[in-house]
Amino acid sequence: MPVLLSAPNPDHMYPIAGVRLGVAEAGIRKAKRKDLTVVLLEPGASVAGVFTQNRFCAAPVQICREHLVSAGAGVRALLINTGNANAGTGADGRARALSTCAALAGKLGLAREQILPFSTGVIMEPLPNDRIEAGLDAALADAREDNWLRVSEAIMTTDTLPKAFGAQLDIGGSRVSITGVSKGAGMIRPNMATMLGFIATDACVSPTIMQQLALELAEASFNRVTVDGDTSTNDSLVVIASNRASHAPVDSLASAEGQALKAAMLGVAQQLAQAIVRDGEGATKFITVAVEGGKTTAECRLVAYAIAHSPLVKTAFFASDPNLGRILAAVGYAGIADLDQSCIDLYLDDVHVAVQGGRHPAYREEDGQRVMKQAEITVRVLLGRGDAADRVWTCDLSHDYVTINADYRS
Amino acid sequence: MPVLLSAPNPDHMYPIAGVRLGVAEAGIRKAKRKDLTVVLLEPGASVAGVFTQNRFCAAPVQICREHLVSAGAGVRALLINTGNANAGTGADGRARALSTCAALAGKLGLAREQILPFSTGVIMEPLPNDRIEAGLDAALADAREDNWLRVSEAIMTTDTLPKAFGAQLDIGGSRVSITGVSKGAGMIRPNMATMLGFIATDACVSPTIMQQLALELAEASFNRVTVDGDTSTNDSLVVIASNRASHAPVDSLASAEGQALKAAMLGVAQQLAQAIVRDGEGATKFITVAVEGGKTTAECRLVAYAIAHSPLVKTAFFASDPNLGRILAAVGYAGIADLDQSCIDLYLDDVHVAVQGGRHPAYREEDGQRVMKQAEITVRVLLGRGDAADRVWTCDLSHDYVTINADYRS
Repeated sequence: MPVLLSAPNPDHMYPIAGVRLGVAEAGIRKAKRKDLTVVLLEPGASVAGVFTQNRFCAAPVQICREHLVSAGAGVRALLINTGNANAGTGADGRARALSTCAALAGKLGLAREQILPFSTGVIMEPLPNDRIEAGLDAALADAREDNWLRVSEAIMTTDTLPKAFGAQLDIGGSRVSITGVSKGAGMIRPNMATMLGFIATDACVSPTIMQQLALELAEASFNRVTVDGDTSTNDSLVVIASNRASHAPVDSLASAEGQALKAAMLGVAQQLAQAIVRDGEGATKFITVAVEGGKTTAECRLVAYAIAHSPLVKTAFFASDPNLGRILAAVGYAGIADLDQSCIDLYLDDVHVAVQGGRHPAYREEDGQRVMKQAEITVRVLLGRGDAADRVWTCDLSHDYVTINADYRS
Repeated sequence: MPVLLSAPNPDHMYPIAGVRLGVAEAGIRKAKRKDLTVVLLEPGASVAGVFTQNRFCAAPVQICREHLVSAGAGVRALLINTGNANAGTGADGRARALSTCAALAGKLGLAREQILPFSTGVIMEPLPNDRIEAGLDAALADAREDNWLRVSEAIMTTDTLPKAFGAQLDIGGSRVSITGVSKGAGMIRPNMATMLGFIATDACVSPTIMQQLALELAEASFNRVTVDGDTSTNDSLVVIASNRASHAPVDSLASAEGQALKAAMLGVAQQLAQAIVRDGEGATKFITVAVEGGKTTAECRLVAYAIAHSPLVKTAFFASDPNLGRILAAVGYAGIADLDQSCIDLYLDDVHVAVQGGRHPAYREEDGQRVMKQAEITVRVLLGRGDAADRVWTCDLSHDYVTINADYRS
């Protein structure tokens, strides 16, 4: 069981008007397991997506990108399977994914392009599209608006707990709800998106700003977490506005309403993204890596990810061992060519570990030890060369990460 | 005990005329352990070095770079300690390293600039320079030409076996010897050099080509291995030609003699570099990642390192699990923006796993399983977009890597 993550709070999983969800057991990889999800949207919903930058992106990711263009505002359903990624499957994988879209479209009286397919699971194995298609009737029969908890469970693979968060706010006197779910625990270093994340709101949002909203949410949430640095072939974040609330449509993210909605949705997105790290394979520590004083945000992020990906740093956190020179080494190889080590300061929570590139005279091993034993730790690096800052969230590297990933398929 | 590495063959550790080596117990970190080495060069030796690109490079690395310039052809001794890296130690660390150089210079009647210092061990702890200086007499008293084996032992940290290789060849009718030693098992992703590597020959080499020789050796050996992707603060490779053989000096690497000498030295350098991977912390598999068909060597290397650094690929090798889609995912996120997945082929030794980006129709799980069980495996990726190729050597990621690095300081 994860020590860093709690089960979702059902009271915060708000039904979203115009969004019905159904799950079923399709036997995609294992028997007796909910592994198929359909999300049904009423006409008029605004939908946007952000997808993995992995060049070996899965067939469903390729199709999602195409369907979001060809269907435009006409997207009416999401079809999600776990157990099989349908990645590294070539032309055959594409045909199988399209077949599942056509099957669902046929049952709903829609065109194939109005369906967005999503897959997650093992790479380079044929998608059992026949089993998915055979499971559609059961999933459709299950569809209802208060089904978010069961969806959060049905999209899990190596996740130990489902991930779902919600929020409510008032826009123009109208109560608006937001609910999101995500899955993921390994192969996590989203690059423009996450493993799978779905966030829906009944707010009214102009289609023209939906894509911008999705990008900005991804950039400040899923694109700031890493477990093992492995960018998945299937990362997908989909943001849905069902436009069922009674307020005037939000047509700018810079307006007061736009900022309020974005802040509330970002809160949900960050909780979903951080939940993936908290449930990171084998994770025993939740670590925030904050880098300040850089010339650019990009170089701060470079340093933050170098620290967050270092196996030596991650095993030191697992051991609660303040072997903190490993953090300095990661700062040094992050890739800033003109970095001056004599300008670097390092803090572990409130403990000043290194000053001007060397051990702080007042630093005591027991102070570092005290912080390292905590379940949540902030590493703070001051580069001393500018005003930019950035941060990422990660976890430690434990025996269980090796165990889980050595045994995943068996 | 490592399953992939054997103890050095003393018959291949040739004494190098003009190079005497001595070791001693200085108690730098642990008692009763040879942890101090001096290498004494007769006047006239040609010396070149290649050092870490880590911006947090250790004090001794900074000093080596300076002394190689200021002493020129006058370098007369190497002073090597294990147990303490003297990195992340600021101005105080520099002063302590210079103090050890001055102490050895005083005993040898040399200038401080004629000494090259090297350190390896824990980062961000003060160098016990007093203990090093107190141990110098014992190390000097021990100095002799047939002492390579004891040096290879004295420079070990988390290494489980010493690493030493040698070769002999004829140049201009003169028998020439080459002997090298290296250390390293973790924090290994040398970037222009290795943890510590020392290669000496009695061949006569013009000082003008020594630096080029060192760079070319590093580039094709230590710069092609990785254990955990962590570039050390202390990586140093030093190449020494004592110029004691009787042949005419080699003054070009393009000449027949230059090519023969470089090939023989490269053989030693690659064995030393590969030995670090074979002794990689927790390693149970030695993996060659060969990438062919790229537009440039650089992009082939990018893909090879993405595969070699992926924790998911490395744990799959540890488990002997042919979960080979993970390799395709790493190819996809390696960073080639215009990569076309439908052009990619993947082989595991002789087994054709994927063709045109998808699973090969004839690929059978048991064939992949057979190769994965081997102790030495070649992953071969064909990018299908050009004629360039490159390769790196790496190992798997096992429970013991976590154990070793969680416990390293205790």
